[in-house]
Amino acid sequence: MSKFSEFKPLNEHTLIEYIKTIPTLSSKLNNSFSDISIKEIGDGNLNLVFIVSNSTGSFIIKQALPYVRLVGESWKMTKERAYFESLALKEKGKLCPEHVPEVYHFDRVMSLIGMRYLEPPHIILRKGLVAGVEYPLLAEHMSDFIAKTLFFSSLIFRSTTDHKRDVAEFCGNVELCRLTEQVIFSDPYKVSEHNRWTSPYLDRDAEAIREDNLLKLEIAELKSKFCERAQALLHADLHTSSVMVTRESTQVIDPEFAFYGPMGFDIGAFLGNLILAFFSQDGHANQANDRKTYKEWILKTIENTWTLFYYKFTKLWDEHRDGAGEAYLPEIYNNPEVQLLVQRKYMTELFHDSLGFAAAKMIRRIVGVAHVEDFESITDAAKRATCEKQALDFAKMLLKERRKFEAISEVVSAIRQI
Amino acid sequence: MSKFSEFKPLNEHTLIEYIKTIPTLSSKLNNSFSDISIKEIGDGNLNLVFIVSNSTGSFIIKQALPYVRLVGESWKMTKERAYFESLALKEKGKLCPEHVPEVYHFDRVMSLIGMRYLEPPHIILRKGLVAGVEYPLLAEHMSDFIAKTLFFSSLIFRSTTDHKRDVAEFCGNVELCRLTEQVIFSDPYKVSEHNRWTSPYLDRDAEAIREDNLLKLEIAELKSKFCERAQALLHADLHTSSVMVTRESTQVIDPEFAFYGPMGFDIGAFLGNLILAFFSQDGHANQANDRKTYKEWILKTIENTWTLFYYKFTKLWDEHRDGAGEAYLPEIYNNPEVQLLVQRKYMTELFHDSLGFAAAKMIRRIVGVAHVEDFESITDAAKRATCEKQALDFAKMLLKERRKFEAISEVVSAIRQI
Repeated sequence: MSKFSEFKPLNEHTLIEYIKTIPTLSSKLNNSFSDISIKEIGDGNLNLVFIVSNSTGSFIIKQALPYVRLVGESWKMTKERAYFESLALKEKGKLCPEHVPEVYHFDRVMSLIGMRYLEPPHIILRKGLVAGVEYPLLAEHMSDFIAKTLFFSSLIFRSTTDHKRDVAEFCGNVELCRLTEQVIFSDPYKVSEHNRWTSPYLDRDAEAIREDNLLKLEIAELKSKFCERAQALLHADLHTSSVMVTRESTQVIDPEFAFYGPMGFDIGAFLGNLILAFFSQDGHANQANDRKTYKEWILKTIENTWTLFYYKFTKLWDEHRDGAGEAYLPEIYNNPEVQLLVQRKYMTELFHDSLGFAAAKMIRRIVGVAHVEDFESITDAAKRATCEKQALDFAKMLLKERRKFEAISEVVSAIRQI
Repeated sequence: MSKFSEFKPLNEHTLIEYIKTIPTLSSKLNNSFSDISIKEIGDGNLNLVFIVSNSTGSFIIKQALPYVRLVGESWKMTKERAYFESLALKEKGKLCPEHVPEVYHFDRVMSLIGMRYLEPPHIILRKGLVAGVEYPLLAEHMSDFIAKTLFFSSLIFRSTTDHKRDVAEFCGNVELCRLTEQVIFSDPYKVSEHNRWTSPYLDRDAEAIREDNLLKLEIAELKSKFCERAQALLHADLHTSSVMVTRESTQVIDPEFAFYGPMGFDIGAFLGNLILAFFSQDGHANQANDRKTYKEWILKTIENTWTLFYYKFTKLWDEHRDGAGEAYLPEIYNNPEVQLLVQRKYMTELFHDSLGFAAAKMIRRIVGVAHVEDFESITDAAKRATCEKQALDFAKMLLKERRKFEAISEVVSAIRQI
C-alpha cells in the first residue's frame, strides 16, 4: 500500500515525497529535487497552500483540511470540497482559460490539487484595493469570466440532460452550500456566537438588523433562490480575495464552494466586494493620498463590470440563439421583438438578483463571522466604524429597494450620495 | 440465472410465472394460482397495467415499457421511470397514506411495481367529471395530499442536506422532465408534427398562440421555474386522470414524472384540469341534464381546493415553525409580524405560479399532442371547438394576467364571465 493511499495533511517534508510519486508534478520540476523550495502560504480559513518551485518550474499544491482552519478543528468541513474545486476549475478553465489557473493534478484521497503558480507580481485583488492600485483591465477581464462561465453553464446554452446531470453532481457539495446559507443568509440576522462587529460603535446597527422585518423578508427571498434555483455553475465565493491580479492579468481562484445556483450570486459577490472596497477608502486616505481618484476608479469599475457583462452575456446569447439550449428554442423565440422581450426580462431579473446578493454579501462582512481586510486594516476603530456604517446603510437600502434600480449608473449615483 | 434477471415485457402468462417467484406478491393470493384472474387494463401511453386477483386477494402490476405506447416504439422513453415512480409512491405514501396506494413490490430490472388494486367503484376522476358525478370530499382530500406532499418535501420543513440529496436522486428522472418540457412548454408555441387541435375551427387559434409574443414571454418564465427551481418533490403529472375516486375515497396514482420542481406545477395541474372539465360541460349537456348544477360544483371544488390547501399548508408551517427547516429559521423569523409577512409573500407567489401552470396545462391539452377525454368525448366537432375555444381564451388571459388575481374567488368569477 502506498504511503499516500489514505488522507493525511502534508508538510514541507512529506510533500516532497508525495511529489516524487506523481510524474505530472515532478516533471514540472524536471525531476530535480536538490534545489526545491517549498513555502506554505495558506492564509485562508480552510486549506493548506504550498508554493513548490525550483530553477526549472513551479506549481501550487492546495490541500483541503477536514475543518475550517480559522475556527479550529471543532468546525468540521468535508475535505471533499477539493473534488468540487478541481471540477469547477477544470470546467471554468475550459470555458475561460485566460482567467483560470490550469489544474495539473488532482488526488481525491489526499484532497489535493496541483495547479499553476500565479507568480509575482500577481497579488490578491483585495490587497491591491486596500493599497489603492488601479487595474485597468479588471472590469474587462471579470466581465469576461462571469459572462462565459455563467452563460455556458446555463439552460440558455445547454440541454436539460447535461444540466440535470451536472446539477446532481454538484448537489454533493452540500456542506459548503450549508456554510454559505449559515454565514450569509442566517447568522447576520440572528444572535450568533460567530457574529462580530466593530463594537461599541455598531452595536445598535447590528441589533437593528436583527429587528428589521423587511430586511428579513428580502433575505428570505434571496436565500430561497440560493437554495432552490439551479441556474448556472457558480464560483459561489467570488469576492475580491478569490481573484489574483497584475495590471495585465486577472485570475480567478478558489471555487471550492462551486454549485448550481442563481447567477446573481456570483455577480453580486464581486460587485458587493467592490462596493465594500469603495466605502473603506476614506479609512485609508492620508495626506499623501486622499483616495478621491481611486474611489472614482472603483465606481467606474463597478459600472463597467456590469455594463460589459451585460454586453458580453447578451452577445453570447445572440450568437448561440440557434444552438441546443433548452430555455429559448429558436422555433418559438423566432422574431426580433420576442427575442428582445425575453432578453430584457431575463437581464432585468438578473440585475436585481445581483444587487440583492451584493447587499447580502456586504452586510455579512460587517456584522457576520468573516470580515474583510478592506475594513480590518483600518486600525482606528472609530474611523473603521464610520466606513462600515456607510457601507451597511447602503447595503440595507440596496437589499430593500433593489427592484427600483433600472441601470447600474443609478446604483453608482446612490453610492455617491451616501 | 433466473428467468426474470433481465427486462422483458410481461403478458398474462409470463406474469403468473413472475408472481410465483415473488413471495410478497404470491402471499397476497395466499399462494393459490388455480383461480387467478389477470386482466391488462393499460389505456395509458406509457405502461402495461395488469389487475391480478383471486378469491383471497388482489394487486396491480404496472410495468414500464421503454417507449411511449401511444406513439409507438419510435418514441423512446426510459423504463427507469418505474424506479422514480416507486420512489415517489413510497415517499408520498409515507406523507399521506390515506390518498396514495400502497406499494408491495418493486423490481428495477423488470421496471415493475406491484401495488394496491383500487377496487370498484374507484374510477378515474376524469371519467367521473365527464359523467357529471359529484365527489363531495374531493377538494378536502386533494388539498390534503397536495399540502402534505409539498410541505414536507420543501425547505420550510427540511434541512439542506436532505433536500440536496433527494434533488440529486430525482435529477435522474431527466427523460421524463424533458418530455414535459417539450409537450407543455415548447410544442404548443411552435409548429410541431405532434400538435393537433379541432380543425378547422381552431386553426386560427393555434396559429395565434404561435404568434403571441407576450404569451411566449410568460411561458418562458414558467419553463425556467420548471427546469431550475427545486422547491418540493412534485407528482409532476397531477391531472384528473392521475386521481382515482369514489364518493368516499381519493387516491393519487402514476407519479412517474416525479422530480423536485416548483410547487405551483402540481397545484396548477389539478386546478387547470378542473377548469378544462368546467368548460367541457356545455358539450355534455342534454335535455335530461343541463349540467348547470354540476358546473357550480366544479367551480366550488376549484375554490375549495385552493382555499383548503392554503389553510392546511400554512397550518403545517405554523406547527413546524420550530423544526429543522432551513428556509425560515425560528431565531430569525421570531415575531408574529415577520412570520405573517413571509408567509403571505410565499403564498402569493405560489398562487400566481399555480395559476400560470394551470393555464399552461390547459393550453397544451387543446393545441398540443395529448388531449383530454373531457373534450374528446364531445363527438360534435363544432360544439367541441366552442368549448375548447372558451377554455383556451380563458387560459391565455390567465397566463398573461395571473399576477392581477389576489384570491381564488376572483379566478372563479373570471371563469364564469367567459
